[in-house]
Amino acid sequence: MKNNYYKELELKYKEISLLYETMGILHWDSSTVMPKKSIDGRTDQLTNLYVLSHKMLKDKNIYDCIRKSEKINKLSNWERRNLKLIKKEYILNKSLDKRLIEKISHATSKCEMQWRVSKENNDFKSIVPFLEEVIELRKIEAKIKSKVLKCSLYDALLNDHEDDLNSNKIDTIFNQLISFLPDFLKEVLNYQKKKKLIHIKDKINTNLQEELGRMLMKKIGFDFSYGRLDVSMHPFCGGAYQDSRITTRYNEKNFVESLMGVLHETGHALYNLGLPNKWKYQPVGDALGTVVHESQSLFMEMQVCRSYEFLNFASPFIRKIFKKNGIKWRADNLYKIYTSVKPSFIRVDADEVTYPLHVIIRYKIEKDLIEGNIKVKEIPIIWNKYMKDFLGIVPKNHKEGCLQDIHWFDGTFGYFPTYTLGALYAAQLFAKIKRIMPNINKQISKGNFKNLLDWLRLNVHLKGSLCNSNELIKNITGEELNIEYFKKHLINRYLN
Amino acid sequence: MKNNYYKELELKYKEISLLYETMGILHWDSSTVMPKKSIDGRTDQLTNLYVLSHKMLKDKNIYDCIRKSEKINKLSNWERRNLKLIKKEYILNKSLDKRLIEKISHATSKCEMQWRVSKENNDFKSIVPFLEEVIELRKIEAKIKSKVLKCSLYDALLNDHEDDLNSNKIDTIFNQLISFLPDFLKEVLNYQKKKKLIHIKDKINTNLQEELGRMLMKKIGFDFSYGRLDVSMHPFCGGAYQDSRITTRYNEKNFVESLMGVLHETGHALYNLGLPNKWKYQPVGDALGTVVHESQSLFMEMQVCRSYEFLNFASPFIRKIFKKNGIKWRADNLYKIYTSVKPSFIRVDADEVTYPLHVIIRYKIEKDLIEGNIKVKEIPIIWNKYMKDFLGIVPKNHKEGCLQDIHWFDGTFGYFPTYTLGALYAAQLFAKIKRIMPNINKQISKGNFKNLLDWLRLNVHLKGSLCNSNELIKNITGEELNIEYFKKHLINRYLN
Repeated sequence: MKNNYYKELELKYKEISLLYETMGILHWDSSTVMPKKSIDGRTDQLTNLYVLSHKMLKDKNIYDCIRKSEKINKLSNWERRNLKLIKKEYILNKSLDKRLIEKISHATSKCEMQWRVSKENNDFKSIVPFLEEVIELRKIEAKIKSKVLKCSLYDALLNDHEDDLNSNKIDTIFNQLISFLPDFLKEVLNYQKKKKLIHIKDKINTNLQEELGRMLMKKIGFDFSYGRLDVSMHPFCGGAYQDSRITTRYNEKNFVESLMGVLHETGHALYNLGLPNKWKYQPVGDALGTVVHESQSLFMEMQVCRSYEFLNFASPFIRKIFKKNGIKWRADNLYKIYTSVKPSFIRVDADEVTYPLHVIIRYKIEKDLIEGNIKVKEIPIIWNKYMKDFLGIVPKNHKEGCLQDIHWFDGTFGYFPTYTLGALYAAQLFAKIKRIMPNINKQISKGNFKNLLDWLRLNVHLKGSLCNSNELIKNITGEELNIEYFKKHLINRYLN
Repeated sequence: MKNNYYKELELKYKEISLLYETMGILHWDSSTVMPKKSIDGRTDQLTNLYVLSHKMLKDKNIYDCIRKSEKINKLSNWERRNLKLIKKEYILNKSLDKRLIEKISHATSKCEMQWRVSKENNDFKSIVPFLEEVIELRKIEAKIKSKVLKCSLYDALLNDHEDDLNSNKIDTIFNQLISFLPDFLKEVLNYQKKKKLIHIKDKINTNLQEELGRMLMKKIGFDFSYGRLDVSMHPFCGGAYQDSRITTRYNEKNFVESLMGVLHETGHALYNLGLPNKWKYQPVGDALGTVVHESQSLFMEMQVCRSYEFLNFASPFIRKIFKKNGIKWRADNLYKIYTSVKPSFIRVDADEVTYPLHVIIRYKIEKDLIEGNIKVKEIPIIWNKYMKDFLGIVPKNHKEGCLQDIHWFDGTFGYFPTYTLGALYAAQLFAKIKRIMPNINKQISKGNFKNLLDWLRLNVHLKGSLCNSNELIKNITGEELNIEYFKKHLINRYLN
């Protein structure tokens, strides 16, 4: 049976994939429960798994199976796509040296740990040598990959997160945003002056915030027998197959932010839990790149949970759990709070309108870092300059400036732009849902998320990585990514 | 340089060792924080790591390095012992088939998960097919190993836990105990009638119990920046290198048991944290078998923490944290409680005198199960018969009977006897300390554990696996394991 070669390839890949799953748990552990000083051992464990998976991936047997599988005619669509994805991963890994991988893993692990300290101490200088080493190593990696992929250094790193993405495409879209957002922002700021909003400054115990978060997670469709909610410095969604773990951070003086953070990560978690079981541990069964992943979190956060309808559904629970009452806890005021626009420092807490500007700043800086146009020590100055240009404000310290995000310090480059692309996808997807389920907003306001989730499962989650993100959006909405849906969404929400 | 072959062997072993470390974290995760239904993925991850480490261990390159290293003259004691230990592991693994390892890993993982349900439902029948499969597979393994080690089936499984142990040696020691304990037990029960003891039935909030546990752990010398305390169904000490995680279970109506549970596991954890850093990730740097591991936990629990002196030190903290007062919270009453002897059902909660009898029951049953003398479905009847014979009581249900322990259901056989051997070692070690530090009890009553811990570190922990447990006790105390120290300890404590 010729087909056996393909089956063998799947089995071999499963072994590697299960190492990734294990790393998912170790990463979660590092960020949530690991004792402070157990870093060295953890770095050793993760580096070991990383190097091992790399070694297994570029094994000659994998290549033999790929070559022989390519000659099989009777592969299904899923199998053919799976073969293609494994082959790409093989070629990229084959081109990389084990020692480089090891060095990168060690350097990023140490840099990330140092970042936690540097950020706490608001000390950029102390992170510089760590980040320099990370960037130097990732540039070497990018150079090798760029030859295989025939692209620029930065585009080679973009490829880690999204298959068919390049900086030309991003520049086109981001330029459209730059030509729209700043003027729009002014209009919104002006428009909002008329609206009376009552700020909520009540201190809310974090246990109650957690209780509310868990309750709403369940309502949306998150099953806690397959996942967790914990606390970490930088919120994320991780874990492993059918074990989807999200984290958040609480601020007693600002439940508003923590709550949306939880709902955002829930969007990620639902995607992971909805992936096709039949293709588990295979690349074709994995989530698509980060653009689609972000589309799922932002769909949940921005399209669904920041809507008046959702807040109308949620406000009685908020009042009940927090034991609060009065006009400021009513849906219309909560909606005003959640759609209030104001230039601010922290990306993850930014409003929907200014958020893309935060992303564009990071995109410009990281592209220049990788392409060698700027130096690490220049980051704070450039950061602050862009903040001034795009948002009109300058952070007082690094904690609220260039040390705020874990990315870069954990070795991640090319991730940031996918946040905003995800927002555009989310808007386009929600516009489609509204066309086929005209009463979707009514369902949301009643707390009925079943049809919504079923639709996402069927159209997005269950598709795994069968097609790329361009094809996916086209298959679902009938057209390519179109920034107009996002613009329309913003205009509807913020100038109405 | 010939020596390179040995260094290469160390590096190769390190890769395998780091997989064990990773498994340590995954095991901890499974028992403490893993979502209920994420079992399947976890089983896949653990099986994958297990099979992989097995494959790496029996790799031809390892064998080449071993053979070539054996010809090197200039290896140090540590290196020579390390080589010997790696070789033994190689030979044992070499004899085992990957598919068998895989089957065992899968079967034990499933059985353990089912045990949690069966125990909760007090349903022995539901576990029978799972345990039968586990035993069938482990017998196949034992048969293969017994040929390599030239021993009986059960002795082959004993070897998993302790290097130089066999059932003849255990029978000799256990027969000595059987000829001493039952009569001694009667004497103690009679003697204790005279003593007035005030039972503590106060409900103590588990948060306060945890606070007390943490406080005393720290006092003894546990550093929380290298470890954790959590809750699990079955208390254990796990984790990884410099990441020592213990668990306990709390009972609001019985802080007495939870507290000693915590202190017991702390003994294990301190051993792990005290291992020689220079030999980390090598078998020679690892903890010795479970006999010595248990000696460390029982040293802490039985020799140190159940002493009048320790309770004299601890009682003010207990009173303060629990906000309690009165005669029953004073050291002399606490000491009476902690040395109160009464035949009971649950091994982990048993007193020091009856505990060995619990162990002997399990030893007899598991030996017979592995040697094929009894069947799984017969366990409850045999269990109850032994309980009646040795302890004079019969459990009302399986939860308090043969379903109480995780061992067997997690695939572990040959572990139980090491508990009692550990108790004998602990008594012999403490007798030695008393000889060289005559005021050790005074130090304990003042909460000064530094000399005690330093002595353990130097004489036990830092020795890693440089010699076997027979040699270790001889090196430290000048004689072989001698049951008389345990007997003397019991007589001193319980008939005084």
